Amino acid sequence: MTDEDADWSVAFAIPADTPGIKQVARITTPRPRKHIHTAHFYGIADSTTIFDDVFIPWERVFLCGETYFASMLAMLFATFHRHSYTGCKPAITDLILGASALVADYNGVADASHVKDKLSDLIAVAELVYASGIAASVKSTPSASGTHIPDIVFTNVGRYHAGVSLYHEFETLADLAGGLPATLPLEDDFFSPETKPLLDKYMMRRDGVSAENQHRLFRSISDMICSSFGGLALLGGLHGGGSPIMEKIAIRNQYDIESRKRLVKMHCGIKG
Amino acid sequence: MTDEDADWSVAFAIPADTPGIKQVARITTPRPRKHIHTAHFYGIADSTTIFDDVFIPWERVFLCGETYFASMLAMLFATFHRHSYTGCKPAITDLILGASALVADYNGVADASHVKDKLSDLIAVAELVYASGIAASVKSTPSASGTHIPDIVFTNVGRYHAGVSLYHEFETLADLAGGLPATLPLEDDFFSPETKPLLDKYMMRRDGVSAENQHRLFRSISDMICSSFGGLALLGGLHGGGSPIMEKIAIRNQYDIESRKRLVKMHCGIKG
Amino acid sequence: MTDEDADWSVAFAIPADTPGIKQVARITTPRPRKHIHTAHFYGIADSTTIFDDVFIPWERVFLCGETYFASMLAMLFATFHRHSYTGCKPAITDLILGASALVADYNGVADASHVKDKLSDLIAVAELVYASGIAASVKSTPSASGTHIPDIVFTNVGRYHAGVSLYHEFETLADLAGGLPATLPLEDDFFSPETKPLLDKYMMRRDGVSAENQHRLFRSISDMICSSFGGLALLGGLHGGGSPIMEKIAIRNQYDIESRKRLVKMHCGIKG
Amino acid sequence: MTDEDADWSVAFAIPADTPGIKQVARITTPRPRKHIHTAHFYGIADSTTIFDDVFIPWERVFLCGETYFASMLAMLFATFHRHSYTGCKPAITDLILGASALVADYNGVADASHVKDKLSDLIAVAELVYASGIAASVKSTPSASGTHIPDIVFTNVGRYHAGVSLYHEFETLADLAGGLPATLPLEDDFFSPETKPLLDKYMMRRDGVSAENQHRLFRSISDMICSSFGGLALLGGLHGGGSPIMEKIAIRNQYDIESRKRLVKMHCGIKG
Repeated sequence: MTDEDADWSVAFAIPADTPGIKQVARITTPRPRKHIHTAHFYGIADSTTIFDDVFIPWERVFLCGETYFASMLAMLFATFHRHSYTGCKPAITDLILGASALVADYNGVADASHVKDKLSDLIAVAELVYASGIAASVKSTPSASGTHIPDIVFTNVGRYHAGVSLYHEFETLADLAGGLPATLPLEDDFFSPETKPLLDKYMMRRDGVSAENQHRLFRSISDMICSSFGGLALLGGLHGGGSPIMEKIAIRNQYDIESRKRLVKMHCGIKG
Repeated sequence: MTDEDADWSVAFAIPADTPGIKQVARITTPRPRKHIHTAHFYGIADSTTIFDDVFIPWERVFLCGETYFASMLAMLFATFHRHSYTGCKPAITDLILGASALVADYNGVADASHVKDKLSDLIAVAELVYASGIAASVKSTPSASGTHIPDIVFTNVGRYHAGVSLYHEFETLADLAGGLPATLPLEDDFFSPETKPLLDKYMMRRDGVSAENQHRLFRSISDMICSSFGGLALLGGLHGGGSPIMEKIAIRNQYDIESRKRLVKMHCGIKG
Repeated sequence: MTDEDADWSVAFAIPADTPGIKQVARITTPRPRKHIHTAHFYGIADSTTIFDDVFIPWERVFLCGETYFASMLAMLFATFHRHSYTGCKPAITDLILGASALVADYNGVADASHVKDKLSDLIAVAELVYASGIAASVKSTPSASGTHIPDIVFTNVGRYHAGVSLYHEFETLADLAGGLPATLPLEDDFFSPETKPLLDKYMMRRDGVSAENQHRLFRSISDMICSSFGGLALLGGLHGGGSPIMEKIAIRNQYDIESRKRLVKMHCGIKG
Repeated sequence: MTDEDADWSVAFAIPADTPGIKQVARITTPRPRKHIHTAHFYGIADSTTIFDDVFIPWERVFLCGETYFASMLAMLFATFHRHSYTGCKPAITDLILGASALVADYNGVADASHVKDKLSDLIAVAELVYASGIAASVKSTPSASGTHIPDIVFTNVGRYHAGVSLYHEFETLADLAGGLPATLPLEDDFFSPETKPLLDKYMMRRDGVSAENQHRLFRSISDMICSSFGGLALLGGLHGGGSPIMEKIAIRNQYDIESRKRLVKMHCGIKG
């Protein structure tokens, strides 16, 4: 932020229902269940938040024109957000991994070596991201306020790895599930008298698991990767907390590349 | 197919409304437009097709227990289907490329070198797939019936490359578009008196392009990559016509790997 | 090339031994064999070619200051060079594939599904590159001189795919061979009385193949991927005929991206 | 190890010069310098170590037929070896990063955004691997002997990421250096009276850096990626301490995949 950007160098916190705030919300959920209900119904709400002549009390203002601190504030916000990512993203991979392992099981291919390799790859993504969060915590810096600032490089490489891996994680689940999540008949058809026996018959892919449970798994996978919610999860996982390019910039800006150049100069016998 | 599989070695063609056929359909479309209509409304219908005591006239039967021909028929069907893929899939990339280039334009980043590199990567996918289709045609084998059988290896490497590239193509478009396709307010909000002026104001990302046109582009991208239709397109593009693993198997089964081993033996001075 | 670049816009052809030409050569070969000779001994010579006051007869000059034609000449040269690449590079993959298949055989893992998958991937690289060469020929343009100019986009996507795949091809062969190409004892040790029986004994990894033949294969693989020749092959395959970034530039410059943007505009209902 | 493998379930430690031990060594170094000497001369020695009737004193024996402990010993050895990798491998990337940054500088492309992105990618590899080592230490388990056993999953995902990234790291350095490391004239030619002034003239790619220093850098890069030493570094980095497939197996064997399947069952409403 330069001096001309002073009007944009503002930060504050107020209640979401302060007069003048307009939230234009978009709610994304999987299609509500009619027959095979589950214990929880999930979704996400995004909001385009517009400040239309909102009064901000002075005591809620953190920054008002101090351009010098603007980038620091942005970087700190991003660092904390991305650090939280190193904990929450592996939990998303837990779901992708669990669904991948279970559908491989139901499809009867759980013992194939290439299937096991794909599960290992999912684990590697989750645990590399999580490891970077642990390392960022261990190497954090205490601040005057008493909070700890996570290590910026470890935080960013973790968020970066999560961001560039997500599409492939979805692809892995789609790969192991086959095309059925995309072509699964509607729920009603599984419960209409005419088609129920037929769909239950042809839904079967593995003895010992009921048709309903197979139906349940494929419908949930369809909700995960074949729905507007799945699309939102992909874009959210790519851009939320900073797109991969933002982490790339943070990584190289914080890294001591010069010392590595000096190391190589010494190695080459280059003086100066 | 072994002798025991004779009952499954059947092939025939009959009208879709023959008595006894039950089609359990699933229709997937983007959310219908209410205000910013477009010239065409698209979607796709999948059908779980069940033959429930259907009479097949003998003159419509191609295969009835001749297990010897079953794998040949399957392979020929797959080859023609995959060959058609080398023509239709590049057209899908045309849409992804056009949307990527246009959204980069609207986002004001079209001249950045990494953006141009991403467009080149999309083009490379489309044209490698298309090239393999051309090569498969040029090297096709005429059959007794007068039709030409596309070269199996070229056909399969093309379909394979399309299949393993699609998720990354969607990721590229999402990367260039940013998060807006996932958080775009609903159409109604863009046309309600209270929010229209505000959303039109904040929708703007580039002078010289109307807010409505920017809205149109991002809504269409949202339909492409942030919808159940987008999810279906991903799974369809991965598994339709044969999952990548099927092409891998076809590729190595048809390829003369032994001649390459002999070449290396000669190179090493290994006799026999 | 701008007007100021006229002095650099020159092209001609003369014999390599014309007075004034200095070639500073670098020869790279695998270590010469002492015991297990092969039918051919190969290597490559690069030359830094310096024109130190060389007389060029006028009839050998193609371009002399005509900046207008300079880029066309460069592009045509590159196109023909890259087109030849679509034929020669698959032959290099033939060697990598043959060595990979043979060493998997000798290591006793040829039937593992992940090994077969890796072979399929090598084949896919070779045949996609070759297919692009065929497509470039089929879609070539006849020129006034009677020669045919290969299609530029097909040519460049083929060379590009070869360039970005080569390191991974070497990695595949290294993966299947294991570490032995890097730790293989010297040839003399395989033929000294003290160590010959021991090395022959421990060289064995598969019954029915002589120790010498196993030795021959691993020494040749060591020459391919664990030598200065292997290093040169990697850099040559990456940069020769134009680094991948050059093909990316050629691809997007020649491609009709605008028509794809118009297609998407129509799809979105964007006028103008 | 089963009961039949008792003869192979042995472990001990003795001095390398114990009578009966035969080491068949292979030494790999870059070509010794003749003119532009550097402070250190490096290389690596591998040894095929043969125990030819060697007496092992009982007090040096750790394992002698106890098959039950054999896999535990192998796993612990691998874990400690792979954990050390998470510290040493990032130091190798330090050299690759430093050389990449310096050669981009000398080539005048250090400010190009795609070059900076490539440096970020190298940093991300190094720091993800290092982070996994830190996490493995933080989550280590104290053993009876007083040593700490690193966390197995974190250790293995770190070694795995290093192993599957190395070829691409070399490719990145080759990409930024261009083809010169492969075609660089021999050292003598840079110091012969006839060619020295010419090579010094054409070696120049950036003002302010002496021809000798440019020569030094490219020769060292040639030693790193265009030599038998570079080939050994690639195979060593791929297979040393366990090939990637070994880590994949360790990862999934140690991971609680079942709990993720239960999580997804709960999410789907699948009982039991």
